[in-house]
Amino acid sequence: MLYLIGIGLWDEKDISVKAKEIICRTKTRVYLETYTSKLSVSREELEKTYEKPIKLLDREGIEQGSSELIEKAKDMDIAILIVGDALSATTHISLIQEAKEKGVKFEIINNASVLTAVSITGLELYKYGQTTSIPFDNPDLETPYNVIKNNQSLGLHTLLLLDLNPEEDRFMTVKEAIHILSQIEGRKEEKVFTSETLCVGCARLGGDYKIVAGTADKVKEVDFGGPLHCLIVPGKLHFVEEEMLRLWK
Amino acid sequence: MLYLIGIGLWDEKDISVKAKEIICRTKTRVYLETYTSKLSVSREELEKTYEKPIKLLDREGIEQGSSELIEKAKDMDIAILIVGDALSATTHISLIQEAKEKGVKFEIINNASVLTAVSITGLELYKYGQTTSIPFDNPDLETPYNVIKNNQSLGLHTLLLLDLNPEEDRFMTVKEAIHILSQIEGRKEEKVFTSETLCVGCARLGGDYKIVAGTADKVKEVDFGGPLHCLIVPGKLHFVEEEMLRLWK
Repeated sequence: MLYLIGIGLWDEKDISVKAKEIICRTKTRVYLETYTSKLSVSREELEKTYEKPIKLLDREGIEQGSSELIEKAKDMDIAILIVGDALSATTHISLIQEAKEKGVKFEIINNASVLTAVSITGLELYKYGQTTSIPFDNPDLETPYNVIKNNQSLGLHTLLLLDLNPEEDRFMTVKEAIHILSQIEGRKEEKVFTSETLCVGCARLGGDYKIVAGTADKVKEVDFGGPLHCLIVPGKLHFVEEEMLRLWK
Repeated sequence: MLYLIGIGLWDEKDISVKAKEIICRTKTRVYLETYTSKLSVSREELEKTYEKPIKLLDREGIEQGSSELIEKAKDMDIAILIVGDALSATTHISLIQEAKEKGVKFEIINNASVLTAVSITGLELYKYGQTTSIPFDNPDLETPYNVIKNNQSLGLHTLLLLDLNPEEDRFMTVKEAIHILSQIEGRKEEKVFTSETLCVGCARLGGDYKIVAGTADKVKEVDFGGPLHCLIVPGKLHFVEEEMLRLWK
C-alpha cells in the first residue's frame, strides 16, 4: 500500500491520529518529501516523535525514484509524508496516477493547507479567484500580475504563494514579493499593483503566524520573521471582511 | 482560551495529535458545530474516542450563543470542533473577530478541507477559479452558473459545493446539482453548462470517496452513494489533467 500523508503546516503534532497510526506500524517505511514546503521542525524531531526512521525525498528522489517507490508499495507499506495537504503539487498527483495505472493500492490522508489556512485573515475563501505563485528565478514573469488583474476584474481576492528552495534554505519574503510585483507594475503601468494597493502579508500560517494588512508601501516595510510567507491582494471587500482586516492593521 | 479546531473530513481519527491533546485535557469544555458540514461518525463516537462529553452547537447555538462562549473562554478552555478546516464559514470567522475585539486569547487548529481534498481528481489546485455553492431553496439563483461562466472564460476549473441541512438529514446530490444547472442553462442558453459539459462528480472526499468524470448527461446517472457530494466543472485541461481524469471515467 502507498500512503500519501499530509502532515499539516507547522510541527510534528499537526499530523492526524490516523496518519500517525499508519506511520508507527512497524512494517511501514516512511519518507519525507522535502522540496515543495517546510515544517518548523526537523526530520530528527519527526523521527523522535514518530519513533521511526524517516528517509528524505528530494526533488530528484521523488521524480526519478517514484516508479521504484510504487513498485515497492506492491509488497510493503510505503508512507510518503508531505507538508501541508497530501496532493498540493503535480508531482504528488503523478504518484497517484502511476499507482492507479499499475494497480497499486493507495490511500490519501488529507491535512491542512495554506490554501484554506489563509481564512484566518477574515477574507472569505469563496471570494478568492485563481491562486498563483511568484518564482525566484523569473522576476519578469507577468503571470502573477495578470492573475491579480483577472481576479480584480471579478472583484476577487488573489493568494500569491511565494517561491521556496528548502535545500538552499531560501524562502521568498513578503517584501521581495511586493518588490517583484511593483517592478512589473512599473513596466506595464496598468494600476493593478501600485504602492497604494491593499495587501495582506502573512507568515507562518497554521503556526506562529503574523498577519499585517495595509498598503503595499506599508506592508513591504514589515519584518514578518521566518518562513513561510505568502501575500494576499484582496478584491472587493464585504464590510465584514473590512472590519476583520482592520484588526490586522 | 478559545480553540477553534478543524477535525477534518471523515472520522474521529482525522483530528490532529495536537488537537486531540487539547480536547483530552480534563479542563477543556468541548463543543461540536453541527450545521455547516458532517462527519461519517456520530457525536457519540467522537465522545467515546476523545473520552469527553461533547455538546452540540447548532446554527442558533453558535450565532446567538457565541458571545457567551467567548465570555466563558476568558476563564476556561473552550474547544469548538468544526468539520473540515476550522474557519470555512463566515460564522467561524466572526468568532475570531469577536475574540480579538474582546481581547480573548484564541488558537486555530487547521485541518483538511474539501477545497484541497478535490486535488485527488488530478485537476490542479492552481487552476481553479472562484468556488461557489448551489443552494436548495433558491434553484433560480444564477450565481453558480455565472461563476462557471466567468471561470470558463479564463480557462479555470469550478468547484461547486452542494447545499446541506444536517439537521434535516438533507444533502444535495451530484444529480440534483446537475439538474439545477441544466435548468438554468435552459433559461439562459449561453452554452455554459450543457448535457455535453465535462463534469467531475465527487462524493465523500477525504474518506470512502467515489469520483466519476464524464459528460453532465452521464455523470447525472451515476449513484454516488451517501453524502457529502460536490461537483467540479473543469476548465481548459492540461494533458496531465486529461490523463488523470481518464482514470475516473
